[in-house]
Amino acid sequence: MPSQQTRTFGAPTGVTTGPITGSRKIYVPSPQDAAIRVPFREVSLSTEAEPPVRLYDPSGPYTETDAVIDLNAGLPQIRRAWLDRRGFETIAGREVTPADNGHAAPAQSVPSCPAQRPVLRAQPGRPATQYEFAKAGIVTPEMIYVAHRENLGRAAMLEGAKERRADGESFGASLPEFVTPEFVRSEIARGRAIIPANINHPELEPMAIGRNFLVKINANIGNSAVTSGAAEEVEKLVWAIRWGADTVMDLSTGRNIHAIRSWILRNAPVPIGTVPIYQALEKVGGDPVKLDWEVFKDTLIEQAEQGVDYFTIHAGVRLPYVPLTASRVTGIVSRGGSIMARWCLAHHRESFLYERFDEICEIMRAYDVSFSLGDGLRPGSIADANDRAQFAELETLGELTNVAWDKGCQVMIEGPGHVPMHKIKENMDKQLRECGEAPFYTLGPLTTDIAPGYDHITSGIGAAMIGWYGCAMLCYVTPKEHLGLPDRDDVKTGVVTYKIAAHAADLAKGHPAAKIRDDALSRARFDFRWEDQFNLGLDPDTARAYHDETLPKDAHKVAHFCSMCGPKFCSMKITQDLRAEVLAMDDTQRAALDRAAGMAGKAQEFRDRGASLYLPAE
Amino acid sequence: MPSQQTRTFGAPTGVTTGPITGSRKIYVPSPQDAAIRVPFREVSLSTEAEPPVRLYDPSGPYTETDAVIDLNAGLPQIRRAWLDRRGFETIAGREVTPADNGHAAPAQSVPSCPAQRPVLRAQPGRPATQYEFAKAGIVTPEMIYVAHRENLGRAAMLEGAKERRADGESFGASLPEFVTPEFVRSEIARGRAIIPANINHPELEPMAIGRNFLVKINANIGNSAVTSGAAEEVEKLVWAIRWGADTVMDLSTGRNIHAIRSWILRNAPVPIGTVPIYQALEKVGGDPVKLDWEVFKDTLIEQAEQGVDYFTIHAGVRLPYVPLTASRVTGIVSRGGSIMARWCLAHHRESFLYERFDEICEIMRAYDVSFSLGDGLRPGSIADANDRAQFAELETLGELTNVAWDKGCQVMIEGPGHVPMHKIKENMDKQLRECGEAPFYTLGPLTTDIAPGYDHITSGIGAAMIGWYGCAMLCYVTPKEHLGLPDRDDVKTGVVTYKIAAHAADLAKGHPAAKIRDDALSRARFDFRWEDQFNLGLDPDTARAYHDETLPKDAHKVAHFCSMCGPKFCSMKITQDLRAEVLAMDDTQRAALDRAAGMAGKAQEFRDRGASLYLPAE
Repeated sequence: MPSQQTRTFGAPTGVTTGPITGSRKIYVPSPQDAAIRVPFREVSLSTEAEPPVRLYDPSGPYTETDAVIDLNAGLPQIRRAWLDRRGFETIAGREVTPADNGHAAPAQSVPSCPAQRPVLRAQPGRPATQYEFAKAGIVTPEMIYVAHRENLGRAAMLEGAKERRADGESFGASLPEFVTPEFVRSEIARGRAIIPANINHPELEPMAIGRNFLVKINANIGNSAVTSGAAEEVEKLVWAIRWGADTVMDLSTGRNIHAIRSWILRNAPVPIGTVPIYQALEKVGGDPVKLDWEVFKDTLIEQAEQGVDYFTIHAGVRLPYVPLTASRVTGIVSRGGSIMARWCLAHHRESFLYERFDEICEIMRAYDVSFSLGDGLRPGSIADANDRAQFAELETLGELTNVAWDKGCQVMIEGPGHVPMHKIKENMDKQLRECGEAPFYTLGPLTTDIAPGYDHITSGIGAAMIGWYGCAMLCYVTPKEHLGLPDRDDVKTGVVTYKIAAHAADLAKGHPAAKIRDDALSRARFDFRWEDQFNLGLDPDTARAYHDETLPKDAHKVAHFCSMCGPKFCSMKITQDLRAEVLAMDDTQRAALDRAAGMAGKAQEFRDRGASLYLPAE
Repeated sequence: MPSQQTRTFGAPTGVTTGPITGSRKIYVPSPQDAAIRVPFREVSLSTEAEPPVRLYDPSGPYTETDAVIDLNAGLPQIRRAWLDRRGFETIAGREVTPADNGHAAPAQSVPSCPAQRPVLRAQPGRPATQYEFAKAGIVTPEMIYVAHRENLGRAAMLEGAKERRADGESFGASLPEFVTPEFVRSEIARGRAIIPANINHPELEPMAIGRNFLVKINANIGNSAVTSGAAEEVEKLVWAIRWGADTVMDLSTGRNIHAIRSWILRNAPVPIGTVPIYQALEKVGGDPVKLDWEVFKDTLIEQAEQGVDYFTIHAGVRLPYVPLTASRVTGIVSRGGSIMARWCLAHHRESFLYERFDEICEIMRAYDVSFSLGDGLRPGSIADANDRAQFAELETLGELTNVAWDKGCQVMIEGPGHVPMHKIKENMDKQLRECGEAPFYTLGPLTTDIAPGYDHITSGIGAAMIGWYGCAMLCYVTPKEHLGLPDRDDVKTGVVTYKIAAHAADLAKGHPAAKIRDDALSRARFDFRWEDQFNLGLDPDTARAYHDETLPKDAHKVAHFCSMCGPKFCSMKITQDLRAEVLAMDDTQRAALDRAAGMAGKAQEFRDRGASLYLPAE
């Protein structure tokens, strides 16, 4: 990846493909509808004693064995037949204008992706969005898909011994033992979950965002006026989902953003989110004061027709709240928030996003674009966390959530930002209360400001905690946050860090099957199955490379020790020997041990259970 | 740093010296005793409007400007005069034997550090340990030193506006607004804090470990039978404290460990901890079954005379508890724990560490070596967290804490390990209850097992949380955990990650001055003072390098935008413009804005406060 200012103006030609080391892509038919085939990633183990471990997999066809990818044609349209049955209108679609690409000069123009799709638009009166279907009691194929996808491992857990099931503290969430399509429908109907799925994004592999599903993560990509181009952004998309990003936001600014987005959408198996005000601002030459409803509306339609699955809309940045930010240490740090604050103050007027919110809903409903109600006044520093500006906006987002639901739209709510640990839970609790349990989608939060270069970690801490408390999706932060644009390595580091946070949250909430992967990896570790340990990890390549730095020889991959302690000092080796020794004892020897331990210990546990505990657990 | 198997057998010749970029070492006399000069690191800012920011600094003389370091002579003996006044006996000291260095062949021998120090030993009947002085009502120079060191910034905060003071949730801790030497004494007398400070470690810059002080971090170094040597270990020590490690444990095994330890101790300004059973095991040829009290006692005396400040003693691994680990997924993962379990089971006898605990106390008291009561049965996986084996041992550690206090010793307690988020607080609460609030010192805990290669992050999450809940010191985990020995980069990454965790915990607990650094950095960020932002961070070099990857030109260091958004999209730039605009308004303009916002908003906040909020906060 380039580490200096670079731009490429051609079409993307290739991306990273092939399975993640040690696993293979499988497609498993849903129990409800065999035509609905859901992707998983399966890790084979080197032992006969354990089945392969099946993992949730947002990476799309790119990780198939012998994947054949044609970026010009776009991904297979797995939703096409479902969408065609819904009676949507096929329209001519809006004409692309030079302004859509920032008036890029011919020599600097990126061509649009040549893949052609019909442009669909819903009519009023019949259900069009997943929310409307759910409210009407209709289970969509998307819901069936999501149910099967989320059920990963739960059947096996249900069959397992009771004491192996997960415990947890879910703070009022309602995690089911088993996810049915009807459960998905009811969660969406209650507004507690969304399936971001624009009807013009037929390539999408549906996924759910909601407190009672697996915690999801988002990765941001996007060029800027300063650096990066089309091929890099498509590769960043593929790279981000390879390592586990569940959705991707395209935050491009500058030139060619319509064209770049066409490549991204036609080749994205995950929901794509955008912040339309960024493009609207480009169309008015970069001056927030020149923004108006017409250019914004035009941009919404442009992006909705392309297939963007969710829009960040900063409609909660109201004129009266802007002065509340004046005494902050870091003012307004959301780009969209600062743009709208500037507009409001310059015009001495209420935000047109707030005033036109009904119309925005009508547009977004017509394509089933989900709302991601933006937190334009989120805190940009520990000093500003949980202040009146932030919470005033959140209360308005609650008001707007109800409006959007009334209009048939799916809604999630964006959250901070920079919050010290003791103020995180207040954010989650207030969001649930104000916004009727609509899914919360936070950036971090960063738990301290003192570590530029390590903000994936300062924020991974906060992300894990707020995920545990009930946040449905965590927007990643890379090591370059506050410093520069992330490159390939940064994207991977950010994604892996946030997979850790999301999974730690699933474990702590008591997700019924989350422990399966931890336990399989821990058994591999204890058995010195090094390859299994690497392959079950979030990043097999890095784990293997780190191991090989100290003990590069293949023989060491089966060695019953590692470089940390060497053969004499390996606790696991000693424990294995110890276990084998007890197992080899005859009854007399065991009884003698029990007596010695009982005498030494006088411990109730030992008298109750004794050395017989060394017999294998059933 | 070497990335393959290497060993160097010579004496170390040099280490990393010089200030951290952007700061300088200062020594500030204690208010109580001007002869007690406490080190801090001071970051100068590029603005006249703010004073330099003073930081806690465990890095020792190595980071002085023009530092002159002579590893052969060892560091200045800042405690010498204090120690000489205490009437300790000067003894000949134990003869070093070939076994102490694992019978290293001459060609493979590391020479001992030539720096000579008298070997001191306390007599019975007069106070010798910091605990005994504290109980006797005596404030030692070490306590005065620590009080001044911990007070960092608190005076400034006390002078500041009330609303700028920290809030927090400390879960029952008693953080004082200001730390006095008497407060330090009382915390030590109550057993709630320790100052690990062997009377044979005169080079030590005293520091405190306790719930009512700053959260501390430990870095592990040490060679192993497989790799690494003397020069590397001394450099790792200097490197680890450079980035913020408050104590360092030398976990060396294999040959030359007595000699390597002599280099470490004579050149360590921080407390050095060890696990004596490792060396004892080397002395009996690596077979746990051959261990006995005599060889262990000999090793305690050997290391205490060298100046080790705290010993991990796994006296809680009792025979009756060993079978409780049999049904675990990962058995016993503590090296010391597995060694003792093996010994107990092989001999069908209670642990000699438990049976001889009184004698161990007497030896450790005579040199003021602090106890770090080891958690030999800590969980090694999410599956095994908070199980009966772990908590049975913790209850025994509570019993032993009281014995050690009775014998006049300082005590802290080691904790896990691998614990999912929802089970972390139970660990902290039980430890406080069972162990009479003796300081807790945990390894992580790791909050998931699925990320080998990223366990600094899986554990940084748990470390921040348990630090918040009351843990006094966090043992770092590097990216190589479970995979290999950390190199220079791994040590730095581990230390910086744990500084983040410790600082996030201080913030959340409501430490009165913790926010100073966050706020200074946030103001620098908002003002586009790039160099100040870098220099106030935990790792200025990495922050600067990340920035320069995208915008390498020096001009960009003063640019009012960055590579993420470019000049048009910078929220901070827009906010600054907006603030300037409001500040430039005359009264009529402000009143008009107030009216417009009031009409649009009908918001109480606005009517109450209005645009006048854009006036500078006083």
